[in-house]
Amino acid sequence: MKRIAIDMDEVMADYFTSNLQLFNSHFNKSLTKEDLQGKRITDIYPELAAELHEITNQAGFFRNLEVIKGARETILELSKHFEIMIATAAKDVPNSLHAKYEWLKEHFDFLDEQYFLFCGDKSVVQADYLIDDNISQLNSFTNQGILFTSHHNIYVDWNIRCNNWLEVKNYFMKELAMA
Amino acid sequence: MKRIAIDMDEVMADYFTSNLQLFNSHFNKSLTKEDLQGKRITDIYPELAAELHEITNQAGFFRNLEVIKGARETILELSKHFEIMIATAAKDVPNSLHAKYEWLKEHFDFLDEQYFLFCGDKSVVQADYLIDDNISQLNSFTNQGILFTSHHNIYVDWNIRCNNWLEVKNYFMKELAMA
Repeated sequence: MKRIAIDMDEVMADYFTSNLQLFNSHFNKSLTKEDLQGKRITDIYPELAAELHEITNQAGFFRNLEVIKGARETILELSKHFEIMIATAAKDVPNSLHAKYEWLKEHFDFLDEQYFLFCGDKSVVQADYLIDDNISQLNSFTNQGILFTSHHNIYVDWNIRCNNWLEVKNYFMKELAMA
Repeated sequence: MKRIAIDMDEVMADYFTSNLQLFNSHFNKSLTKEDLQGKRITDIYPELAAELHEITNQAGFFRNLEVIKGARETILELSKHFEIMIATAAKDVPNSLHAKYEWLKEHFDFLDEQYFLFCGDKSVVQADYLIDDNISQLNSFTNQGILFTSHHNIYVDWNIRCNNWLEVKNYFMKELAMA
């Protein structure tokens, strides 16, 4: 059975919406999602990066993120045909490790926690596929990377891109059909 | 550069001594290290396994473990010739994730946290070598496993065994010489 590794933030968990809300309320700004096409908040306000990191690197922040639409249903379906592994970069947010674990246990209770992986660089991940929104992680990974669309990566070039979980499902159903 | 993955408990961190002390004081017993050659505490007292797990699955327990003799010096030396990755099974002790991270930052400050990996099953680990005291993890791992001696594994068969960190150093110096 082939193995799919899946990133959490911006792929399974809607980090962007919560991060933007927190940023606007904490700094009294009014950035919109449209302002952030192809950019990160810290590209626009680099001088606020350290303080923003401090307020988001909290267990409560990660524990309460929304699930991205379609993630649960598609991953449940894929888990019948593939080994599913969660590969999340937690090295910048060590306070979030336990919160991320609890979030997975709540929203993806059907997954096997043997395959929850908290790491930094994803070159260490042994899997056939990696679904990630971060181009540098896809570059580190040694097998087939799949770019999951997020606001910050819309202008990034990558050979396989999925814009949503329905596209992920279709991609893997084709892979199965060709196997 | 080849990559060595290293387990934490019973390889870098002296889990055994602290666990035995805690067990004896909590349950008013007097087990010795000699009683535990080839066994785990829970082989002798299976009825106490759940309660023992509850008292050790605490951040403070992992945060305060001693470093196993020679680990720091040897890993520092190996880090000049190999990429070092920490691969620790944390799925049974989710409360310990952050404590393990802090322990590594304190005692192995020269390591790159990009390569700290908190996982369950070590089949997910992409590395050339894995040093581990757990035979089932060495069986899961896909490249060269090295059994690090701990009280519970002294009767286990494995093709490469190191009894201490000096033997680990010698093993890898030979590997380098043959490369």
